[in-house]
Amino acid sequence: MNLEHGDHSDTDITSSGGEKRTDFESKNEKVEAVTSSASLDPENWSAYGVLAHNMLDQSISFIRGIRETPIYNILTMPQHVCNLINEPLPEMPQGFEKVCADFTALVLPYATGNIHPRFWGWAAGNGNVGANIAQLMAATMNSNAIGGAQSSTLVEKQVLEWCRQIFGFPESFGGLIVNGTSMAAIVALCIARNQVLGNTRNVRLEGIIGGPKLVGYASSETHFSASKAFELLGLGRNALRFVSVDTNYCIDITHLEKMISEDLENGNLPFCIIGNAGTVNTGSIDDLSALKAIALKYKLWFHVDGAFGALGVLDKELKPRLLGIESADSLAFDFHKWFHVPFDAACLLTRNKMVHLASFSCDESYLTIHEDSADEYPFYYKLGPDLSRGFRALSVWFTLKEHGIRRLGQKVHENCQQIKYLISLLRNYPWIEIKMPAILNIACFRIHPENWVDENKIDLLNENIVNDIQQSGIALPSTTILNGRLYIRCCIINHRTVFSDCDLFVNELVRITQQHLCQ
Amino acid sequence: MNLEHGDHSDTDITSSGGEKRTDFESKNEKVEAVTSSASLDPENWSAYGVLAHNMLDQSISFIRGIRETPIYNILTMPQHVCNLINEPLPEMPQGFEKVCADFTALVLPYATGNIHPRFWGWAAGNGNVGANIAQLMAATMNSNAIGGAQSSTLVEKQVLEWCRQIFGFPESFGGLIVNGTSMAAIVALCIARNQVLGNTRNVRLEGIIGGPKLVGYASSETHFSASKAFELLGLGRNALRFVSVDTNYCIDITHLEKMISEDLENGNLPFCIIGNAGTVNTGSIDDLSALKAIALKYKLWFHVDGAFGALGVLDKELKPRLLGIESADSLAFDFHKWFHVPFDAACLLTRNKMVHLASFSCDESYLTIHEDSADEYPFYYKLGPDLSRGFRALSVWFTLKEHGIRRLGQKVHENCQQIKYLISLLRNYPWIEIKMPAILNIACFRIHPENWVDENKIDLLNENIVNDIQQSGIALPSTTILNGRLYIRCCIINHRTVFSDCDLFVNELVRITQQHLCQ
Repeated sequence: MNLEHGDHSDTDITSSGGEKRTDFESKNEKVEAVTSSASLDPENWSAYGVLAHNMLDQSISFIRGIRETPIYNILTMPQHVCNLINEPLPEMPQGFEKVCADFTALVLPYATGNIHPRFWGWAAGNGNVGANIAQLMAATMNSNAIGGAQSSTLVEKQVLEWCRQIFGFPESFGGLIVNGTSMAAIVALCIARNQVLGNTRNVRLEGIIGGPKLVGYASSETHFSASKAFELLGLGRNALRFVSVDTNYCIDITHLEKMISEDLENGNLPFCIIGNAGTVNTGSIDDLSALKAIALKYKLWFHVDGAFGALGVLDKELKPRLLGIESADSLAFDFHKWFHVPFDAACLLTRNKMVHLASFSCDESYLTIHEDSADEYPFYYKLGPDLSRGFRALSVWFTLKEHGIRRLGQKVHENCQQIKYLISLLRNYPWIEIKMPAILNIACFRIHPENWVDENKIDLLNENIVNDIQQSGIALPSTTILNGRLYIRCCIINHRTVFSDCDLFVNELVRITQQHLCQ
Repeated sequence: MNLEHGDHSDTDITSSGGEKRTDFESKNEKVEAVTSSASLDPENWSAYGVLAHNMLDQSISFIRGIRETPIYNILTMPQHVCNLINEPLPEMPQGFEKVCADFTALVLPYATGNIHPRFWGWAAGNGNVGANIAQLMAATMNSNAIGGAQSSTLVEKQVLEWCRQIFGFPESFGGLIVNGTSMAAIVALCIARNQVLGNTRNVRLEGIIGGPKLVGYASSETHFSASKAFELLGLGRNALRFVSVDTNYCIDITHLEKMISEDLENGNLPFCIIGNAGTVNTGSIDDLSALKAIALKYKLWFHVDGAFGALGVLDKELKPRLLGIESADSLAFDFHKWFHVPFDAACLLTRNKMVHLASFSCDESYLTIHEDSADEYPFYYKLGPDLSRGFRALSVWFTLKEHGIRRLGQKVHENCQQIKYLISLLRNYPWIEIKMPAILNIACFRIHPENWVDENKIDLLNENIVNDIQQSGIALPSTTILNGRLYIRCCIINHRTVFSDCDLFVNELVRITQQHLCQ
């Protein structure tokens, strides 16, 4: 056999610049004359370095000065800025300097605001500056964290093992980092759906059309991501039964069992219970141990939505209230909330890796590499729907190592204390109606002026007050609806909040309320 | 009404440090004595800045020197490094300096390798250094890009509008940035599923159990993410009919129509066709216009999987082969492939925003904010399953602005030429069997020594050769199975590859083959 090399011309390689090469012609095919253009790497690395370091300085000063800046600028954004982010499709390169300048002028100042110490809207964390560097380095490595023999796999495995320990899951656990608790719920409920039907059909092959009518249960305070998961999975939103809640907005166990019995009588097939470890409206925590007992009794999958509240296990006062979380068949929570990892990173823990794999594993010919080392280097694409996976684990690894869980737990504790303090301040005003004592880190209340009886008018007043506070840039509460009425809602998931921020907020609330009532 | 402020103690705020405060007691509730701990921000910003800038320097030099480093280090990673990423759950803070040092020693050197100019495995892009800074700044802003009035919304809207123009979609389009083409396919096929059933039932409420048997079609070369989407959506993998392919691995239209007719005869309900704009094995492009015609004829949803191949529209030679892509009901593609955006970012374009919204929109009481400006500031959580959304659009915006589509298109063109050149080099060796001429940017071939007839032995030889090349650190091809046999597969999605890299690769291939055959 002739292993001699055929003829082709010599080449002149330059490391990052372009490439010059003469025409070539192979035996069977004419290939066009080629001159490689430069890569997308900078032509001038020094100039790039200067700009990049300048951006890093901006990153640092943006965060360092966050307490002194308005929380939420976009409402005052000039229309011309909005117009500027409305340009023709870039044909030709604008260059890095121009992009940085545009970013600084048009994008950076108009963020959501959730890194500010008095951003208490919805449920968002602050991130942390160490993890910002982790995101830079994850982009630098540009790993596709599908698993297998690469460092991203070891880091994800490490982070998941730490989470297993934090939540007391068994060593047989399955774990996956995803982009949010919504996605974690979809994956978890898919496993639950497939498992319950597994005795009678191969769901992955045959699907659920023509199968029994599956139903699941969750309290009426459950986040709508559960409904969306039921929709996506083909079960339909009606298949998620909403169980009534008690005065603390926790699931009514008696009502739950009654509903299960009714479904069984009607020939439906109950398959899961979703418990809340911190509801989105009020931070209420369902009785997770009681739910687990019901799940065992009726052989149902027990999923816990712990988007932010799950991290309460790091606080010794809250931990007893979360008892039962360690018994869940699946637990979903966000890293970008009380772990303060930057968006987006979340986690799904399941009780049994084999059951988890059974719903998502796959073997594809073009992916084969060193399968024999699957224990050491798991393949994460076999545990969920994604095959393109950013290296999210790195930001979590940075955060947990830099700060440690004791400090993160202390921040959880303080946020809950701050809400209690905020409520204690609000209680000084008889015209503020406080919906309920703080359970976790959320206060719901409303301005209810003496002698006002028109509920719609009260709703509108509170809505206007919240809008004005948001526009003031001093604090950012949001609103929610409880029992059909609008309430002001403060949810503190914030490592930068200090107690005196509550004073500032209440002062602002009182000032703006006065404006509205004295007009 | 008394709007006077109640009594509470004065406070001493420090910007980033801790907070000292005396005991307080409100009228109704005893709140514990509190001393806020410091935030997670650095105690010493200067020291943090030095470390952060040092990491940025590492990021720059890592990429700048990538051509001179081995592609893939982890196979030679010492066991003690692996052990080091196996530490107890961090209770106490380790500090930023320690985390950075651990990252530099344990994580950075053992990346996937896909930023190297001779990484040609699977289908991964390189990212680009400008977008690395975008990821840093996205983490800094820490926006939850759910939409609404914030700059991330404007940037995403801009990027999606640019994509609409690139692919020729109508102005009525819907668009969403997601983490990967797999997720984009799930969202697209969910919309398709819900729409086809929409005449007879409200799928979001009632689900698909008890409904007609839905079936879809795709070529046998279709990526397995389509099967996984069918599984997740409850349709079952069997409901995805695999249509045979021609000698170029493109879908056989005649066979497709025959299968549709059979399904209709058997009482099944065809609902979608998936076309490939670049199959994963061979880069084959289905006849998209013909598929669209079939879809129209049978009233089916036409989804195009263009994970990497869709970007061929930027190359004037390839564009005619992709004709019909602009007519798709939905198109999914990755930004982290030929757009060279760092992981993970992908896109779903749909033909009709109203149809798209109908499957994912929702109104939640706790999310209400400025709904009246939904045209200016769309809510992206109403177009997909995620409510936690990192600011992925920023990296895409940086990349498109910095480099412009003409340059990105040139890189697509060169990668395809490089594969042709690679094949021309391989043709010089009679003992290399080339599976087919290059269609896009993929070459599949195998070493077939003269007189060898044992196909399993040939498979093993090629597998061993690929393993040795991967371990050499000089080049990284992967393998795939075509017609039951193992082939070496080079897929060039790489802005750093130059033509002479193909020479280096072939030299290495020949050297290692010689080693194997002369043993």
